[in-house]
Amino acid sequence: MIGFEQDGRIGRLFLQRASHANAFTSEMLGRTAEIMELAPGESDVIVIHAVGDDFSLGRDREEPKNPGGPYAAFSEISRVNAAFAAFPGIVVTAIKGRAFGFGLGVAMRSDIAIAADDARFMLDEVSLGFPPMFLMEVILEHLPPKRALDLILSSREFGAAEALDIGLVSRLVSADKLEAEVDEFVETLIGRDPDVLKSCKAYLKAVNQMPASARPNYALVEQARFALDHH
Amino acid sequence: MIGFEQDGRIGRLFLQRASHANAFTSEMLGRTAEIMELAPGESDVIVIHAVGDDFSLGRDREEPKNPGGPYAAFSEISRVNAAFAAFPGIVVTAIKGRAFGFGLGVAMRSDIAIAADDARFMLDEVSLGFPPMFLMEVILEHLPPKRALDLILSSREFGAAEALDIGLVSRLVSADKLEAEVDEFVETLIGRDPDVLKSCKAYLKAVNQMPASARPNYALVEQARFALDHH
Amino acid sequence: MIGFEQDGRIGRLFLQRASHANAFTSEMLGRTAEIMELAPGESDVIVIHAVGDDFSLGRDREEPKNPGGPYAAFSEISRVNAAFAAFPGIVVTAIKGRAFGFGLGVAMRSDIAIAADDARFMLDEVSLGFPPMFLMEVILEHLPPKRALDLILSSREFGAAEALDIGLVSRLVSADKLEAEVDEFVETLIGRDPDVLKSCKAYLKAVNQMPASARPNYALVEQARFALDHH
Repeated sequence: MIGFEQDGRIGRLFLQRASHANAFTSEMLGRTAEIMELAPGESDVIVIHAVGDDFSLGRDREEPKNPGGPYAAFSEISRVNAAFAAFPGIVVTAIKGRAFGFGLGVAMRSDIAIAADDARFMLDEVSLGFPPMFLMEVILEHLPPKRALDLILSSREFGAAEALDIGLVSRLVSADKLEAEVDEFVETLIGRDPDVLKSCKAYLKAVNQMPASARPNYALVEQARFALDHH
Repeated sequence: MIGFEQDGRIGRLFLQRASHANAFTSEMLGRTAEIMELAPGESDVIVIHAVGDDFSLGRDREEPKNPGGPYAAFSEISRVNAAFAAFPGIVVTAIKGRAFGFGLGVAMRSDIAIAADDARFMLDEVSLGFPPMFLMEVILEHLPPKRALDLILSSREFGAAEALDIGLVSRLVSADKLEAEVDEFVETLIGRDPDVLKSCKAYLKAVNQMPASARPNYALVEQARFALDHH
Repeated sequence: MIGFEQDGRIGRLFLQRASHANAFTSEMLGRTAEIMELAPGESDVIVIHAVGDDFSLGRDREEPKNPGGPYAAFSEISRVNAAFAAFPGIVVTAIKGRAFGFGLGVAMRSDIAIAADDARFMLDEVSLGFPPMFLMEVILEHLPPKRALDLILSSREFGAAEALDIGLVSRLVSADKLEAEVDEFVETLIGRDPDVLKSCKAYLKAVNQMPASARPNYALVEQARFALDHH
């Protein structure tokens, strides 16, 4: 239900459970983690495509509970998130239809989310009776808190324009051109020096985790080091 | 001049000094602090309503100075802010007319601010000759710094659309439907499991105060613990 | 190629290499740093104006490489950035035409950027083969990460409306009124108590560098201290 194709330095992961709007089963989580764990050696860019009308409705809610209990169940999510966080290349998601719950989480944990202008989003966890902690772990890096808390507590559906406005996605494109625009962007990326792409991502993460006072010297040293290594 | 009604697990605080556009006197600050300090035991949701045309013009500037000096005067503000910060439930503000100075601060320190689409905002402190430090203490959690500093230094009035755009409020509603929309949202909240609401708020605050590297394990443990406690 | 005029407590720095769209040579970087280093004693407000159609295309790419190697070359940028960071007054940039690369960096490191509504922006470094580390050092203080990384990796040009929306500039004005609107804003600033302006800037920076739990007491003490010192 998860497909994968390697195409040069581009990995393409396909959510292909269209009959269930790409709701993630445990098996799909495991397979996604596996692919992402292997990706650093093979791919500079990973593109996540969805088959069917929707990106993903999130976790499959009909699956029998994990016999290992909640810690084991949530460890599967944790493993996927860790694999995304550890990937040094660029993850691009192509968002269409509905991106709900964990589906929205995948978009948020990707580096670049390109969304169809008719895509729809929902954090439905609170309406289902639990707090979406894996999502809340990172949501305030993306959105203002007043917008984030409203979406979380109300579990209301919202559209692509609002998602762009608040910072959840990188850009909107006309729905009928989503695949073409994503392909064009991926071509642009793959035409760049992969070390430059990876440095940008790694550097943004690094400065975000150090005090402001340490950043100027870090920038000077890293920028000079990059130039010495590459020219 | 501050009213309060308890309605099940909903507390409703009323700013009712419409003759002065709900400018806060010291007495009103003390009474607001008192209500918010008692609220955790009684209310899962606090709604702040304003009587009259305006939410609040902020501090009353005509009141005689506090005989205890500025430290005593500002301690009243500090106490109100501390009471808001300590409330574990959800504070919803219904913003209409003008929300200036400390009035805007109350909106910012609430969890959800629902604003009439013709509401107006102003940080008038700099034009009055002093830096709005209690506001600046939290403003960069909500707005981009270039927008925030412009509003602070210019003390210019701005509208509801800009307030939504920059992150100061959660959503806009048609002015004639403000009370109805706030009531509907509060009904939604009160229909949720209160532990879920409180966990969302507490968890967002907690992750925001820990290093990024600690968050994944925290999310996994807390999500599993919540499931074990509640199902 | 860099002009400077002192006008009371207002310093006006002019980028005046219009023949090259104000691309910064090493000499211009050195002169900018020098002016900014002297500014604290003379100016409460620094305004950066550009001569010609464009604000700046960024670094001059045709200049021979610095014989001291990349560390020496980048130290010039570092010195300019440090001088901006150390200036206690308010830096206002008047952005028109193109603000690319280091030019966009100057806008970002100013306190208030007022942009013509037809201004255009680009982070062209990645397309030139290197990561823009000095820019990335501060960009996440201004923009949501999904918008920032898209602009960095794609090196795409974007307009003034998008720059305002994401937080890069403070406000937009009609292109033919840029100078008049900047002058009016600068007049407003210079009509304020300069200690208030400087306190706002210094205080925002200070709270941003302390844990959330320390801010309430800091606000109370600083607000009382300001009142005691000034009234």
